[in-house]
Amino acid sequence: MQANSDELHIQTQAQLGELYEALDSGTFKQVKRMLNGLSPVEIAHLLESSPPPSRRALWRLVDKEKEGDILQELPDDIQAQFLRRMDAQEVAHITEGMDADDVADILQQLPDRVIKEVLKAMGEQDRQRIETVLSYDEDTAGGMMDTDTITVRPRFTLDVVLRYLRRHDELPASTDNLIVVNRKDEFLGLLPLSKLLTTDPSITVREVMSTDAEPIDAQLPDTEVANLFERNDWVSAPVVDEDGKVVGRITIDDVVDVIREDADHSLMSMAGLDEEEDTFAPVMRTTPRRAIWLGVNLITAITASAVISIFQDTIDKVVALAVLMPIVASMGGVAGSQTLTVVIRGMALSQVGRHNLGYLLSKEATVGLINGFIWALVMGGIAAYWFQDINLAIIIAAAMVINLLTAATMGALLPVLLRAMKIDPALAGSVALTTVTDVVGFFAFLGLATYFYA
Amino acid sequence: MQANSDELHIQTQAQLGELYEALDSGTFKQVKRMLNGLSPVEIAHLLESSPPPSRRALWRLVDKEKEGDILQELPDDIQAQFLRRMDAQEVAHITEGMDADDVADILQQLPDRVIKEVLKAMGEQDRQRIETVLSYDEDTAGGMMDTDTITVRPRFTLDVVLRYLRRHDELPASTDNLIVVNRKDEFLGLLPLSKLLTTDPSITVREVMSTDAEPIDAQLPDTEVANLFERNDWVSAPVVDEDGKVVGRITIDDVVDVIREDADHSLMSMAGLDEEEDTFAPVMRTTPRRAIWLGVNLITAITASAVISIFQDTIDKVVALAVLMPIVASMGGVAGSQTLTVVIRGMALSQVGRHNLGYLLSKEATVGLINGFIWALVMGGIAAYWFQDINLAIIIAAAMVINLLTAATMGALLPVLLRAMKIDPALAGSVALTTVTDVVGFFAFLGLATYFYA
Repeated sequence: MQANSDELHIQTQAQLGELYEALDSGTFKQVKRMLNGLSPVEIAHLLESSPPPSRRALWRLVDKEKEGDILQELPDDIQAQFLRRMDAQEVAHITEGMDADDVADILQQLPDRVIKEVLKAMGEQDRQRIETVLSYDEDTAGGMMDTDTITVRPRFTLDVVLRYLRRHDELPASTDNLIVVNRKDEFLGLLPLSKLLTTDPSITVREVMSTDAEPIDAQLPDTEVANLFERNDWVSAPVVDEDGKVVGRITIDDVVDVIREDADHSLMSMAGLDEEEDTFAPVMRTTPRRAIWLGVNLITAITASAVISIFQDTIDKVVALAVLMPIVASMGGVAGSQTLTVVIRGMALSQVGRHNLGYLLSKEATVGLINGFIWALVMGGIAAYWFQDINLAIIIAAAMVINLLTAATMGALLPVLLRAMKIDPALAGSVALTTVTDVVGFFAFLGLATYFYA
Repeated sequence: MQANSDELHIQTQAQLGELYEALDSGTFKQVKRMLNGLSPVEIAHLLESSPPPSRRALWRLVDKEKEGDILQELPDDIQAQFLRRMDAQEVAHITEGMDADDVADILQQLPDRVIKEVLKAMGEQDRQRIETVLSYDEDTAGGMMDTDTITVRPRFTLDVVLRYLRRHDELPASTDNLIVVNRKDEFLGLLPLSKLLTTDPSITVREVMSTDAEPIDAQLPDTEVANLFERNDWVSAPVVDEDGKVVGRITIDDVVDVIREDADHSLMSMAGLDEEEDTFAPVMRTTPRRAIWLGVNLITAITASAVISIFQDTIDKVVALAVLMPIVASMGGVAGSQTLTVVIRGMALSQVGRHNLGYLLSKEATVGLINGFIWALVMGGIAAYWFQDINLAIIIAAAMVINLLTAATMGALLPVLLRAMKIDPALAGSVALTTVTDVVGFFAFLGLATYFYA
């Protein structure tokens, strides 16, 4: 991502510079004008990129009628911060006219009691739309759908459909298909706008509608929705409830958000972080979250130390062992984390499973073994020269081969085992692997040394 | 991502199971029928999920006319493997009728000499389209665009446009706008299909076209194109050359690929891997790539060992130091990598820069310091109890505070420094940080011990 958006970066920082300067010098009128001259997406990005104090100051200067549009572009964490200062009336007001799925996302940051109040403060029609979306889990197709669908009946001619559309002021965003339903609102097929525009208008909907795409079940997890969109290059897709009734429509822009979060999940989890983590979260919120992860790692580190302590006498005899000992563990850690990362990504892409795990395992083990030998030779040579001790060279070389082979094997096996135990491999994989490579690394190196020198 | 696509995972593994079984039992006819009953995207996913030998066997059974569609769904690495076995005629044949950007992607896997031959073997019209795309860098807007645009003139009435469209058999995929150009093909604005369908047909294009969206410059990097699409919820966007002439059109499906690769880049780079890495690449291809990363890490590890060797005499006196020494380095490594990951993601999202780095740095340093104190207390207590030595407890506690503070500070600073030096922080950040946390960890712990015990 390093090349990502140099231009956007420069632009963001220039805008922040101007805004902070104006804030500092107290020229709020100017800040207000500058800020509200930007699009909601741009304002959201500036808020995300600001430390909490400036964030609050900027938010107060945002035009009331823009608040809703900005709010829906912000990550959950920051949404919650701003919502906490609003009452139900205000929330109902700023979410007016927004897509149902976006309103539902915002409401889900609030306590149940407040959600009820906000719904009560809404118009009847809005309330119904949003209650439909809220009735599904946030991470399902139902939770990410809009309710603004345009449906047509199969017996109409295209000419009738064209005249019907002309009665609208505009079509819902990202409409590439009209949804064909029967009188019970059950899904029958899709009428692509491109078909509507290129076909003889006297033909009926039934004759041109496409029936090969299945509608999405409202209960389908959002990651599978994203998979379907990616595999089929969809722009929008209809959502049906358990009775096959069309209840809404998912559009690609919401799918892109899922793809982005999904891809961020592995990266952030491998460091024990949440993918929604606010980069500029205040110290008091960040510290406890990080502390837990450090605590887990301390147990790993103490386990490794306990292994070393078994061999205190040997180290006492040959102090060079203490000098070289971290190298074996470190190389194992790196080799293991490479395999782990490849396998975790392979699992995220649904590539790795029962029928190819065998190949993957033997491949990674072979790579680990070959690289073990290569770097064992190099490191053995260095150790022999450094400490003028051929035994030490043989010991570190052998320990390195053992640890790199173990690391590669466990790097491939651990995520699969963790998944079978319903534990997130991205979260638990790296700690588990470090424990293995440290313990095996120290044990192999110091154990061999004890055998040689005892 | 762990919850990702359980269903897809199960389906993939079931299909692989059936296919491999049929391959093993030599019933190729059955494999052929099963395989070719799937969509190109599904076949591509099965090929990606297969070890190279099964991959080649399956590929040979794929219907000739499907090869092109499957090929364009595969990552670069695997595309190249299959293309190596084809001659120019075959490549020209299977890419017939494909989008220009997809053909260009495929051709870029071939040597220049072969590209020329393939282009020569194509029809005149195809050749021109593809040469246009090939004239731009793969990672720019020009390299990811299609050339199949529908353009209209501003003076036409919508009725004329509607009749013009009806002369087409279908519209290009993901067409949500027609592009309005003057007689020199220069971009003037967009005519959304939704406007076309909801507006009185006697009105002219000029009156309803939208002119607020800027077209994309063909030289714009693909990551910035993705940013524009994400920020504006676009489905497609026109691309213009340096003279403002419309040369093509980018669609959301190609943008989603960029977003996915972009997000994968940080994850894979932090383990020294390429985001295009083939999960099942053969040993001989994987080993050298991994070896280089291990070599870089060996230098880091030896540097840390060199620091330890300075304090050999102290370790010789107090062997408990050798036992506890890895804990300080390890905790620093974990604290640092948490900060590093947050900052690298923040940079990828264009959030972090000159105007908020100060806040971020002081925040991360404070978190590091507080967590340093918390775990120093815990570890100090453990060390005092374990070795019955209060000095050792004080030494490890102090070293831990120093190392966690350093780790957090450097975790925030390093990626910014690396970027300023035009080095990819995702790739170099973790190695650079480990070097710092190891060196400082060992130096602080053993240095303090030398001071106390000497």
